[in-house]
Amino acid sequence: MANVTPIKGAAVIGQSGGPTCVINQSLVGAALEMRKSKAITEIYGALHGVAGMLSENFIDLRKEDLKTLKAVAETPSSALGSVRKKVSPEECRAIFKNFQKYNVRYFFYIGGNDTAETAHILNEMAKEEGYELRAFHIPKTIDNDLMVTDHCPGYGSAAKFVAQAFMGDDLDNRSLPGIKINVVMGRHAGFLTAASVLGRTKKDDGPHLVYVPERAFDVDKFVADVDAVYSRIGRCIVAVSEGICDAAGEMILHKFAKSSEVDSHGNIQLSGTGALGDVLANLVKQGLGQKYQKLRVRADTFGYLQRCYPGVVSKVDQKEAFEAGRTAVRMALGEDVDGSVAIKRLGGSKYAVKYVRTPLSSVAKETTHLPDAFINAAGNDVTKAFVKYALPLVGELPKVALLKGVKVKKKS
Amino acid sequence: MANVTPIKGAAVIGQSGGPTCVINQSLVGAALEMRKSKAITEIYGALHGVAGMLSENFIDLRKEDLKTLKAVAETPSSALGSVRKKVSPEECRAIFKNFQKYNVRYFFYIGGNDTAETAHILNEMAKEEGYELRAFHIPKTIDNDLMVTDHCPGYGSAAKFVAQAFMGDDLDNRSLPGIKINVVMGRHAGFLTAASVLGRTKKDDGPHLVYVPERAFDVDKFVADVDAVYSRIGRCIVAVSEGICDAAGEMILHKFAKSSEVDSHGNIQLSGTGALGDVLANLVKQGLGQKYQKLRVRADTFGYLQRCYPGVVSKVDQKEAFEAGRTAVRMALGEDVDGSVAIKRLGGSKYAVKYVRTPLSSVAKETTHLPDAFINAAGNDVTKAFVKYALPLVGELPKVALLKGVKVKKKS
Repeated sequence: MANVTPIKGAAVIGQSGGPTCVINQSLVGAALEMRKSKAITEIYGALHGVAGMLSENFIDLRKEDLKTLKAVAETPSSALGSVRKKVSPEECRAIFKNFQKYNVRYFFYIGGNDTAETAHILNEMAKEEGYELRAFHIPKTIDNDLMVTDHCPGYGSAAKFVAQAFMGDDLDNRSLPGIKINVVMGRHAGFLTAASVLGRTKKDDGPHLVYVPERAFDVDKFVADVDAVYSRIGRCIVAVSEGICDAAGEMILHKFAKSSEVDSHGNIQLSGTGALGDVLANLVKQGLGQKYQKLRVRADTFGYLQRCYPGVVSKVDQKEAFEAGRTAVRMALGEDVDGSVAIKRLGGSKYAVKYVRTPLSSVAKETTHLPDAFINAAGNDVTKAFVKYALPLVGELPKVALLKGVKVKKKS
Repeated sequence: MANVTPIKGAAVIGQSGGPTCVINQSLVGAALEMRKSKAITEIYGALHGVAGMLSENFIDLRKEDLKTLKAVAETPSSALGSVRKKVSPEECRAIFKNFQKYNVRYFFYIGGNDTAETAHILNEMAKEEGYELRAFHIPKTIDNDLMVTDHCPGYGSAAKFVAQAFMGDDLDNRSLPGIKINVVMGRHAGFLTAASVLGRTKKDDGPHLVYVPERAFDVDKFVADVDAVYSRIGRCIVAVSEGICDAAGEMILHKFAKSSEVDSHGNIQLSGTGALGDVLANLVKQGLGQKYQKLRVRADTFGYLQRCYPGVVSKVDQKEAFEAGRTAVRMALGEDVDGSVAIKRLGGSKYAVKYVRTPLSSVAKETTHLPDAFINAAGNDVTKAFVKYALPLVGELPKVALLKGVKVKKKS
């Protein structure tokens, strides 16, 4: 990076989209780095992302004491408030006008691909008008569905929550056997659902079946899969993404249940309802209820717990989120550049990463999915390659143990 | 306790009912204490409680190595397997016959009031036949609804999970404001739902409304309560017990939704379905959708995560569960007595307890509820007295922090 004297001006930082356990690490990482810079005259935290940028609702991040910032970094959810608003071209123009009014020269926006797109639009607007703006996107998703980056800050902690949830549920299910279906967040990408397997260590540990949106969900095959596991070991734990669709692309939730709410990005509301779990449980009861007496089928939908549960956080994820925030500021101060911070995994036996810049447009446009190599041929589990990829992001999981269980010989 | 030479014979220990994060502490506490005794010739672990006692499915707990036992103690769920079976008089007789066959003189059964009842029946049977049996119930519930004892092992850890879940959800809801309803386990007793408040530290921290089965749930009042909170702070988090009923005693879940499964104790299946949350969310949407535009209402049902989530456990609860198991064995070896171990809270400013014996019949018959002093007058929150009662059982909660948030003056 060339060491060019950075332009003097204010910075705006905001958070957008669903919160995570480490999005405040990125905020604080960026804020602390900005506070070191003399080029950055003011550090404005936009409340609720673009909503705050539109209404000039800013807080002064230079006035936060270090102790508070450090405590906030450890706190789940978006400390500046978040937003799910899709900005119109007119609103982008209004935000850009506000940026000019406050002499904003540095813009950092933490979020997913929609967030990157907003940063991209504002950046293009500034370019068109010949206004020097250094716009950076700092990646954040629990879905892990951003392009370019090896993985997203936020994913590791959510994955840890999900992995531990399945560890506990597997033990629960061993104790009181039955069929248990757990619905995991993930509309289009199955990374988080795939993380359900990360706590598997022993033979027949659940989840025994994993269904991700990357594969068409066939109800008959699903019921047959459950039957196969249940008839073999007398229990079955299923991990399923909220966004699973049939071969025609219709969501299973809609096919069998009613749901109508749509957010401002046109996304159908999937979380915050137990409907899919109940739909799948009923399908299993209908399909297997005749074959097995007293079939115990239950479903849980993990819901919002997956993204903001305090005290269950990946240390690796925390560190990387902090570094992603810090790196964005360093890059913006280094050169008149814009972009998104991407994490690149280095080769070698020990997990290590570096942070690189990628154009905003490369992240804004599309999302990514579980690669084929991470899904088994039957489309009902993940592969060892996935575990190798994801385990370092999650870090240490709790140790659990079963009894050896030496059987006592029955007395005749 | 008189120091009488204990009768020589085998011991059976079993686990029953819904698992918890610390029920294995009681198992291991009891097993280690038994292993010290020469009077106890064999230590049989009954697989899946009464099911194993009926079918003579025992494992030898003397053959487990110490390292495994210690690791199992830290592991959630019931390591011996659990059961929800209600035993008939004939089955009790069959179990008793098996006890005689194996010369079982010590019986330890870890569970709730149904479990205590089974121990009680077997104990009475032994008395009638003049067969010396020392039967002990070791308390376990996440519902905290057992008689006599100050609180139940298992409750503190589940309460911690719930408290942390609400801490995270409150932060989530601050970030993306709306109305959020979380359904917590608890058919008849509201202790676990009440624990939702234990992480509240700051003004307007959620949950803002708490509904427990001890108070009749009135739909109109509920919607008005939500309206009052939402109109004041623009968001609202609700904690509600799965078992809430209307004034006539009809469950809200049944009044507005369909559910039909009943377990062998005659309990209607409430967990493992998201239906109540969806019912309540729809009631709020119907009631307030006209008044507020773009009302965001979501519901989550915490489900089984509440009872077996690894890595979120109360240290106090762990210790007490272990001690409860150990104490039962000590009591049984001390005298020819039967009973249930109860925890008695000692006076004084620092939390401390002692373990006492209470007759099996005193625990087997009924369950208890949140005392009136723990519920506020409006019936939509808990009191400080509850927090004082419950906080020591949960132990330390994660620290979370908000930004001070010094507003930037708007530029005209």
